Amino acid sequence: MNDRDAIKSCPLFSGVTDRDLDDLTRIARRQVFVKGQMVFSEGDEATGFYVPVEGKIKLFKLSPEGKERILRIAHPGRTVAEAAIFDIGLFPACAQALEPSVLLFFPKQAILDLLHHNAQLAINMIGGISRILREMMDHVESLTFRDVPSRLARYLLDLSDMQKRHVHLPVSKTQLAANLNTAGETLSRTLRKMSDDNLLRVRGRTIEIIDFQGLVDLSERYKE
Amino acid sequence: MNDRDAIKSCPLFSGVTDRDLDDLTRIARRQVFVKGQMVFSEGDEATGFYVPVEGKIKLFKLSPEGKERILRIAHPGRTVAEAAIFDIGLFPACAQALEPSVLLFFPKQAILDLLHHNAQLAINMIGGISRILREMMDHVESLTFRDVPSRLARYLLDLSDMQKRHVHLPVSKTQLAANLNTAGETLSRTLRKMSDDNLLRVRGRTIEIIDFQGLVDLSERYKE
Repeated sequence: MNDRDAIKSCPLFSGVTDRDLDDLTRIARRQVFVKGQMVFSEGDEATGFYVPVEGKIKLFKLSPEGKERILRIAHPGRTVAEAAIFDIGLFPACAQALEPSVLLFFPKQAILDLLHHNAQLAINMIGGISRILREMMDHVESLTFRDVPSRLARYLLDLSDMQKRHVHLPVSKTQLAANLNTAGETLSRTLRKMSDDNLLRVRGRTIEIIDFQGLVDLSERYKE
Repeated sequence: MNDRDAIKSCPLFSGVTDRDLDDLTRIARRQVFVKGQMVFSEGDEATGFYVPVEGKIKLFKLSPEGKERILRIAHPGRTVAEAAIFDIGLFPACAQALEPSVLLFFPKQAILDLLHHNAQLAINMIGGISRILREMMDHVESLTFRDVPSRLARYLLDLSDMQKRHVHLPVSKTQLAANLNTAGETLSRTLRKMSDDNLLRVRGRTIEIIDFQGLVDLSERYKE
């Protein structure tokens, strides 16, 4: 993905004009990270935000005992820490490159200057953050009101972008269970049941989706 | 609370100038709702957003079987459906007045016109939505990584604004259990344990907080 495409595919920038894209590409700085390198740490001053162009970024928090809690994995076409520069100005989590990665860095002051002279871009960004907020609210709804098979089905459909037949889990099954707010055992049992029902096939961390419509039906189910 | 104070206390508008407040007050329309009256329904066109000035608004979704799932209760000083007008343009949930309520309605077109001529206000609103997004992410983190006593402690501290000794639960205990993603039984047991530990006293839906620091300590605990 080139810089322009990476910016364009971010929900944060949906609806931007070609001229806005020129402006955004102009202020972005390319930064290269090796595998395992930290991008930022929780509590650091948020001097800007990032858009991955290549690679994968792990966003996580550390518990008081130093245990890692993965929040999400950021791929190209998603912004990282977009809200931090407008909010309290500190990074809310740690970010680390999971593989060799190229990120675009948007410095806070340059973005603010751009928005000051371009109210329409600012309005578009309100729309973009609103969209991210809605996704997050859907996620809360799903954690609260959906059962484990429904949450897992929705997670796999999201990973597949509703079309890829083979998806690779970006985190371990233990971590996935934690993210879906369930026990590892329950996750294994649910995967086995889905496999028995011919919805999917599991090979290590690769899942082959056999029945998309079956997963969609399952994903819409509520808790009893 | 008067209209101006209600607008001023919304996180969405934090940092607005007196002149912005004049503009916002000018475009707002006061609407009065009787107890039980619907404000809007899920899927309706989002023609604007709301700020409660008096009363309480229940935000909820209906399951396919018609079962009500309460998302949150909006009080004066919080915006309702602020993201909908900038996002896909439809209300994402239903809203109903729980008691006689007065709301300020901000029509979509008037807000967009205002923002077009006031990039700084638009930037402030990006900050406001970013703050709401961060709260939502904290909520996801808490649902995923915190145990029930921790989630309940945090919920009660939020309700009390870290100072009110008596808080009244705005929803039934069954609904509260669902929102905290636990069973009714577990919630009752947790409240009993907290009472035995002299953190609080329960009288029906009124909770008296005895030990604020104890609740704060508990709220910071992670799942095993």
